[in-house]
Amino acid sequence: MTELIKEKIQHAVEILKEKNIDMWMTFVRESGNMKDPMMDMIVGTNCTWQTAYIITKHGDTIAILGSLDVANMKSKGTYKEVIGYLKGIREDLVKTIERINPNKIAINYSFNNNLADGLSHGMYLQLTEHLKGTPYIERLISSEEIVASLRGHKSNTELALMKEAIKITLELFKKVTGFIKPGVSEKQVAGFLLDEVKKLNLETAWEVEHCPAVFTGPETAGAHAGPTDRLVQPRHVLNIDFGVKYKEYCSDLQRTWYILHEGETEAPPEVQKGFGVIVEAIKKSADAIRPGKQGCEIDDIARNYIIQNGYEEYPHGLGHQIGRKAHDGGGLLAPRWERYGNIPFIPIEKGQVYTIEPRLTIKDYGIATIEEMVYVKEDGVEFLSEPQKEIYLI
Amino acid sequence: MTELIKEKIQHAVEILKEKNIDMWMTFVRESGNMKDPMMDMIVGTNCTWQTAYIITKHGDTIAILGSLDVANMKSKGTYKEVIGYLKGIREDLVKTIERINPNKIAINYSFNNNLADGLSHGMYLQLTEHLKGTPYIERLISSEEIVASLRGHKSNTELALMKEAIKITLELFKKVTGFIKPGVSEKQVAGFLLDEVKKLNLETAWEVEHCPAVFTGPETAGAHAGPTDRLVQPRHVLNIDFGVKYKEYCSDLQRTWYILHEGETEAPPEVQKGFGVIVEAIKKSADAIRPGKQGCEIDDIARNYIIQNGYEEYPHGLGHQIGRKAHDGGGLLAPRWERYGNIPFIPIEKGQVYTIEPRLTIKDYGIATIEEMVYVKEDGVEFLSEPQKEIYLI
Repeated sequence: MTELIKEKIQHAVEILKEKNIDMWMTFVRESGNMKDPMMDMIVGTNCTWQTAYIITKHGDTIAILGSLDVANMKSKGTYKEVIGYLKGIREDLVKTIERINPNKIAINYSFNNNLADGLSHGMYLQLTEHLKGTPYIERLISSEEIVASLRGHKSNTELALMKEAIKITLELFKKVTGFIKPGVSEKQVAGFLLDEVKKLNLETAWEVEHCPAVFTGPETAGAHAGPTDRLVQPRHVLNIDFGVKYKEYCSDLQRTWYILHEGETEAPPEVQKGFGVIVEAIKKSADAIRPGKQGCEIDDIARNYIIQNGYEEYPHGLGHQIGRKAHDGGGLLAPRWERYGNIPFIPIEKGQVYTIEPRLTIKDYGIATIEEMVYVKEDGVEFLSEPQKEIYLI
Repeated sequence: MTELIKEKIQHAVEILKEKNIDMWMTFVRESGNMKDPMMDMIVGTNCTWQTAYIITKHGDTIAILGSLDVANMKSKGTYKEVIGYLKGIREDLVKTIERINPNKIAINYSFNNNLADGLSHGMYLQLTEHLKGTPYIERLISSEEIVASLRGHKSNTELALMKEAIKITLELFKKVTGFIKPGVSEKQVAGFLLDEVKKLNLETAWEVEHCPAVFTGPETAGAHAGPTDRLVQPRHVLNIDFGVKYKEYCSDLQRTWYILHEGETEAPPEVQKGFGVIVEAIKKSADAIRPGKQGCEIDDIARNYIIQNGYEEYPHGLGHQIGRKAHDGGGLLAPRWERYGNIPFIPIEKGQVYTIEPRLTIKDYGIATIEEMVYVKEDGVEFLSEPQKEIYLI
């Protein structure tokens, strides 16, 4: 993964230049216990004591770390300058910052973007203590714009890995269709998929507790809950939310099935209607995505279409970015709710990958939901996943 | 693991009573991306949106979370009251705090203890924004004393799991002794141990990148580096730093070997001397451990003994606490160096488990280091690991 890290560091340098920020610093300790989510992308290993990973707009990469972490860091080859300290970081840190003499120092804290918020409050206090009496304490800014841009814009290497993760996921959806039948439980369906993931020597895209999430029939637990002992039965609408990590890059997709009752050859009209509204909501909202639009404008389209068709609105956002994490932060296709802060207003950018995942409840049958993944181009989107257009019949 | 979580929550309530702190709140979001290290101990699952896990000194346990996380949280059964919100947490959060009307609210930030520092700076800003205009904003305190006590005091259940992890590790050290021979590389030795861990369906106690760490001969990379292609040779001193997780609880042990040269039947005197100094340094420092002593007083004993014997002092602390994490935070047996902050001065407490791991370089041969694990009792320590007294000969 070293090449991918070098590629992202190079990209970070370009972002710093473009935004005229002299220096970006990821400041951490004991990352084996809690890891700043940017570390996997721009560091690729852990540290023990207080550590500063510095990238400058001139392309310098400097790691200042406890002396015993030096050999490990050097072996990665991702930072050109590796400075080890024995007793405390302050002296080397201040000296290095004085040498760079930055106009601004971006650090990883953010009100709204959790992936740009890896600096703990205690470490923030440590940092301001180290910089006390220097002019640099006044030059600290949030790295959220850098992080959003760096995570958002997928390189070709990243895109290729995500396409592979999607391909695998769609194949597994095909496989599990042969397993779903009346009498098996949500847990068994999930277990089938997890076994397949294990056979492929892969990991799920998020915690196995609810990846896959499986919901069958009416009165299910709702999104983000784990599968239960509830049994699949005829006349159930069943859906699965699932993804895998392929070389650290994620897929996140949902598909919907209907379990035919004896004598039925297709889903009843109300199920078809609900499913069709989801298909159409995805199409309409995907068609509207353009660089520069706000996420909430896209959410509006799917949400209003669903409400106009007589269903309740979905209790979450329409879609999120995805990449190295299933929830990859930055701009979101989300409604203007307090819990989303300023995020629904962030403009969509070229090179991002979003999920689109509206949901609605079909009374007495279950939940219809489809989740696709789209890549934002200059003039619209490319579907990375072959979209589900018909409900799968069991 | 639900029982263990309930046991730790109960213990937290007792600590809150003892310290007269009305309320402890773990405040987090998107814990799949970055997890407050206390969550595994007192929550046991993840959350998506802003979430408050509240424990009060009266034994109340309240989780306030995004509505889609409610079913998952309820299914865990660890918090009695589970409150879901749709649009934003502020209203329910403030209402709940007003109902408790706490004298103090402990939150997870700490200057020195990374395991009590799971609150990100952005979430700290969010929290102070939510509490603006209420008296509670002035009542926020660091949870570091609660965390140190809760992680430090091992319950019998926890101790039993750690003993099992130690037993497995010592068995694997025995096995690898049959594998080490001239011509195999550090990486191969590490690979042998990792295969054994896999066979047992376990995980290593820290990142596989440097667990096990294997160092053979003079001029090795030093602690915290990963194994290299360097080959084991006669007259090398070799050491391994290794541990496993058994049901989420860790071991962390080191052992030292000597590779005999043709005709040798024992290690040369300088190797025996260096190894013997380490054995004695462990014995002397372990003998001095008592509840109430400061960590730095214990570090002094081993460090001074090593220096008195003509070796350089080790460039790290003598030992750390261990439990659910290999580096389990709180008090440390460490020197009075800037990088350790106030931690070396924290008094040792009954019920804690520490590693003891002095190290020294034997010129021209390699590094001698042993790491044992000890449990602190009223009047001294109990060795949880059978101590290495003789260098292992290959």
